Amino acid sequence: MNGTTHSYAVIFSSVLRENAPGYREASERMLELAQKQPGFLGVESVRDEGGAGITVSYWESLEAIDRWREHAEHRLIRARGRNEWYASYRLTVARVERSRDFEA
Amino acid sequence: MNGTTHSYAVIFSSVLRENAPGYREASERMLELAQKQPGFLGVESVRDEGGAGITVSYWESLEAIDRWREHAEHRLIRARGRNEWYASYRLTVARVERSRDFEA
Repeated sequence: MNGTTHSYAVIFSSVLRENAPGYREASERMLELAQKQPGFLGVESVRDEGGAGITVSYWESLEAIDRWREHAEHRLIRARGRNEWYASYRLTVARVERSRDFEA
Repeated sequence: MNGTTHSYAVIFSSVLRENAPGYREASERMLELAQKQPGFLGVESVRDEGGAGITVSYWESLEAIDRWREHAEHRLIRARGRNEWYASYRLTVARVERSRDFEA
């Protein structure tokens, strides 16, 4: 890969509060919206019974990530997340260096 | 950050087969071993009831990741994973550009 072809991963690791009313609907809505953004490449998301979750979204560029961050509805939902749903989270942006798939 | 201080994330997204005997013990053993490797910074891991999981480990350098990949016991367990446990997986190595934590 050279500097012009790197894609980027946004790693969102979170723990929900015990009560997080409206979280699931908002989460589905954000996934739907994200998939329509320019530069969106894909997403993987897992949440366990205890409320711990990791979502990794993949993007063509840092600019695409910045545009999504500035999206009006996404900003509102993020604020709601901090106020109502998340006990904690870590958000990491990372440049993809290599990737490998396996299918049994 | 400059070129000498980037850390790296290894994103391992997988789906288990319906039967994966011995997987849990091996997974715990690998986590324990990984934490003892030079350059290991941390790990986040979630698996849901349906068998989908995402594990993100963080490392000081690509060299640290390569050393862990070459670890003899880790190599054996990875081969077992392909033969016995995983329906599919994606392994992505990415260079951390920025990270932010939130606590409610």
